Amino acid sequence: MTTLQAVFPLVQIAQQTRLAASKLALLSTEEKNQAIDAIALALESAQEEILTANVADCQAAVAEGIAKPLYKRLQLDEHKLRDAIAGVRDVGKLDDPVGKVQIHREIDTGLILKRITCPLGVLGIIFEARPEAAIQIVSLAIKSGNGVILKGGKEALRSCEAIVKAIKQGLSQTAVNPDAVQLLTTREEIFELLQLDKYVDLIIPRGSNSFVRFVQENTRIPVLGHADGICHLYVDKAADIEKAINITVDSKTQYPAACNAIETLLVHNSIASEFLPKVAEALAAQNVELRGDERTLEILPNIGLATETDWETEYSDLILAIKIVDFLEAAIYHIDNYGSRHTEAIVTEDLVAAETFQALVNAAGVYHNCSTRFADGFRYGFGAEVGISTQQMPPRGPVGLEGLVTYKYQMCGDGHIVKTYTGANAKSFTHRDLE
Amino acid sequence: MTTLQAVFPLVQIAQQTRLAASKLALLSTEEKNQAIDAIALALESAQEEILTANVADCQAAVAEGIAKPLYKRLQLDEHKLRDAIAGVRDVGKLDDPVGKVQIHREIDTGLILKRITCPLGVLGIIFEARPEAAIQIVSLAIKSGNGVILKGGKEALRSCEAIVKAIKQGLSQTAVNPDAVQLLTTREEIFELLQLDKYVDLIIPRGSNSFVRFVQENTRIPVLGHADGICHLYVDKAADIEKAINITVDSKTQYPAACNAIETLLVHNSIASEFLPKVAEALAAQNVELRGDERTLEILPNIGLATETDWETEYSDLILAIKIVDFLEAAIYHIDNYGSRHTEAIVTEDLVAAETFQALVNAAGVYHNCSTRFADGFRYGFGAEVGISTQQMPPRGPVGLEGLVTYKYQMCGDGHIVKTYTGANAKSFTHRDLE
Repeated sequence: MTTLQAVFPLVQIAQQTRLAASKLALLSTEEKNQAIDAIALALESAQEEILTANVADCQAAVAEGIAKPLYKRLQLDEHKLRDAIAGVRDVGKLDDPVGKVQIHREIDTGLILKRITCPLGVLGIIFEARPEAAIQIVSLAIKSGNGVILKGGKEALRSCEAIVKAIKQGLSQTAVNPDAVQLLTTREEIFELLQLDKYVDLIIPRGSNSFVRFVQENTRIPVLGHADGICHLYVDKAADIEKAINITVDSKTQYPAACNAIETLLVHNSIASEFLPKVAEALAAQNVELRGDERTLEILPNIGLATETDWETEYSDLILAIKIVDFLEAAIYHIDNYGSRHTEAIVTEDLVAAETFQALVNAAGVYHNCSTRFADGFRYGFGAEVGISTQQMPPRGPVGLEGLVTYKYQMCGDGHIVKTYTGANAKSFTHRDLE
Repeated sequence: MTTLQAVFPLVQIAQQTRLAASKLALLSTEEKNQAIDAIALALESAQEEILTANVADCQAAVAEGIAKPLYKRLQLDEHKLRDAIAGVRDVGKLDDPVGKVQIHREIDTGLILKRITCPLGVLGIIFEARPEAAIQIVSLAIKSGNGVILKGGKEALRSCEAIVKAIKQGLSQTAVNPDAVQLLTTREEIFELLQLDKYVDLIIPRGSNSFVRFVQENTRIPVLGHADGICHLYVDKAADIEKAINITVDSKTQYPAACNAIETLLVHNSIASEFLPKVAEALAAQNVELRGDERTLEILPNIGLATETDWETEYSDLILAIKIVDFLEAAIYHIDNYGSRHTEAIVTEDLVAAETFQALVNAAGVYHNCSTRFADGFRYGFGAEVGISTQQMPPRGPVGLEGLVTYKYQMCGDGHIVKTYTGANAKSFTHRDLE
C-alpha cells in the first residue's frame, strides 16, 4: 500500500472517496434527495462566488487566446447557473435506481434468491471545460449512491473549485459525507486516476474523440463513452423525398457538433437524380459543404470529391459526404465498414427494407424515418443522460441513471447446503418466482 | 485488410464466422431450435467416431503423463456423451433470449422507440481439455444467435475435431450456416484471437486463474469470466452452531475445486472457543487441512499457522484458512481486502447483522445462512450458465443466456425531426410506455 501511495498520491483521495461512498450506498432515497436539495441550496447561496471564479477563468482563457466555441462552453452566467441548479432538483425527482429487485425467486422452501440493484462504488468523471457539467455529474452520482472523483477541463479550474466547495458545504449538513465528492486539479492526475482500478469502478470520459480513445486505451477500469460518432442516413429508393430532405437537414444541421449528427448520406441510385439536387439546395441554405463520390458528382458537379478519408471522418461540422449505392445491402455494407455503431437511419416507405435495415445494421440506434438527432437520453425519456455508449455489450446507446448501478445476488436460507440437492436422493429445486 | 491478414491469418476465419453469424442473428426461434435438434442427432450418429477420437486423445495424454484429475476431465465415455447431448436438447427448450422488447415507448405521436435484445455477434470461447464443453458451448451460442470460435485444451484436440465435424454436418441441413461454428487447433491462435476486436464481441475464457488473467490483460475484447474465486464464510457471534458447521463443511468440501468453494473461515471471537473445535472435527472427517491465525491456534493448537499468503490464496483443494475477528466490521474489512468479489456468506441468527453484511459486502453473491456453493446458474434457475463474472458492472455473478445478447434501440417515425422539439415553440414529448 505504501509503495502504491508513493507512486500514486491519489490513492489516499480515492480511499477516502470509497469509504464515503460505501456509506452513501446504504442511504435511503429520502436521505439522498435531501442531500441533493442541500446541494441546490448551497449552489444558490454561493452564486456570487461561483460567477466571480468563472469571470476569472474566462479572463485567463481569453488572455491565452481560447477559441470562441470553447469560450462559450466555459462561460457561466446567472442564467446558465440557474438552469444547472434546476437540473439538480430535477435529478432529485428521478426514480431511485438503487434497491430495485430484478429477480425474486424461491430456490427451495426457505431458500430465497433476490437480485437487487446497488451503486457501482466510485465514479471517475473527466469532463470538458464546462463548469455546469460538474453540477449535473455530482447530482447524478449522489442519486445513484456513488462517490465521484471529478476532473474538469483546466480552463474551468477556478469555477469547478468554487462549485465543488459549495457542493461540499451543502453536503456537510446532510447524511452524505462530503468526501464522497472530490475534485482533481492537475492534468497529471488523470493518468493516475486511470490506474486506480482497485478504487474506481467506472470512468466516464467526455471531450474530444482522441481523448476518449486515450482513456479507453490506458485503463483497466470499465469506460462508459464513445470515441467516434460516425452516423449515416440512407435514403432508400422507396423514400418519400420530402421526409428524406427534412430528416437529412435535421440530422446534419440541427446541432452539427453532436455525436449523433450524420457525417455521410447514402443514396439509392434510382432516386439520386431527383433527390440529390433538392437536398443539396436545402443543405446549401444551411451553409453545409458537400463532398460526393464520383457518381454523386455527375448529379452535383459543383461539389468536392469525397475520398476514403471522408468516409471515416467525424466532421462535427457543417460538412456532409454523399455516396450513391445500388442497393440496400451496399448501404448496410458501407455502414458496417465505416460506422461507429452509434446511430444509423433509413428513410423509406418500404417496410420490408426498413425492417431489413434495422435488423442487419449493428449499432446502438437503428432508425426508420426519423432524425438521428433523437439519440439522446432525455429524448428517450430517461430523465438524465450519463453518456452514450457505442460498445457492443450493455449498457449501449444513451445511458440514464441505470448505467451508474450494478446488482448483487442476495440469497437467504436457514442452513441450506448444496449436498442436499446432489447425488442419489437429490432434492429438486422449486425455482418459483415470487411476487 | 491485407496487412492485417498477413499478421493474423485468423482474420479470414473470423470474417466467415461473422458473416454466418449475421444471418444466424435473424433466424426465428424455431429455426434455431431445429438447428439445435440437428446438432443433437448428428452427435448421436457420430458417437463412434467421437469416442474413438477421445480414446486416441486419452492414450496420447497418458503417454505424456497427464495428471489424474485432468485425465478424468479429458475422458469422454458413452455416458458423458449421452448427457452432453441431452444438454443440447435442454438448451433447445430454453427461452429464446433474442427479440425481447425491454422498452416500448411512444416518444411522440407516431414516433415509437423500442429496445430489443439481439445477439452479440461472434463469441470467442477458450476452454479446458474437456471435450463435452464444446458441445454445450455451441448449443448456447446457436440458441443466442451468435457465431462461435472455439479453442479447446490441446489434449482434447482429436475429440474436439470430431465433435465440431459432427456439429457442422448437422448444421449443414439447417438454416444455420456451418461457418457459424469454428474450431481453432493451435495455441498460437489464442493470442491472435484476442487481437481480433473488430470481429469478436466477447471472449469467455475457462481454465486456470492465471490463464484467465492472461486473457483479461491481453485483449480489448470484453471478457466474461473471473480470475479468482476467493470466497469467505463468516460465522457471527449469533450463529447457530449446527448450521455453521454444516454450511462450513458444504462450502469447503462439496466440490473444493469449484470457484464458489470457501478458502477462508472468519469466526467471531465470542463463539470461537465453542465453534472451532466442533467444526475442526467435522472438517477433519472430510480430510480438510486447517491453517489458522495465532488466536485460532490457541484453540486449535495442532494446526498450521496461516500467513498473509493464505488469505490471498485460492487453494481449490481441501485446505481451509481460519481467522478470528472481534466484530462484524472486521470480517467485512478482511473480505474487502482479500475477497475476489465472487460469493461471500454469513451465518447468524441476528437479522440486523445479516442485513449489514449483505449490504456492505461488495460481491456478486452475498449469502445468509446458506452454502456459497449455491452460486451457480443452474441452481439460480437460469437453465444454463455461460460463466460466472466477478466484474463490478453487469453481467455479474452466474450468467445465463442473457449474458450472450445485447440490445439495440429501434426508433420508427414518419418524418420526425428534432427541430420540432426545440426552440420557442418546442413541442413536448409524450414519453408514454406502450403495452
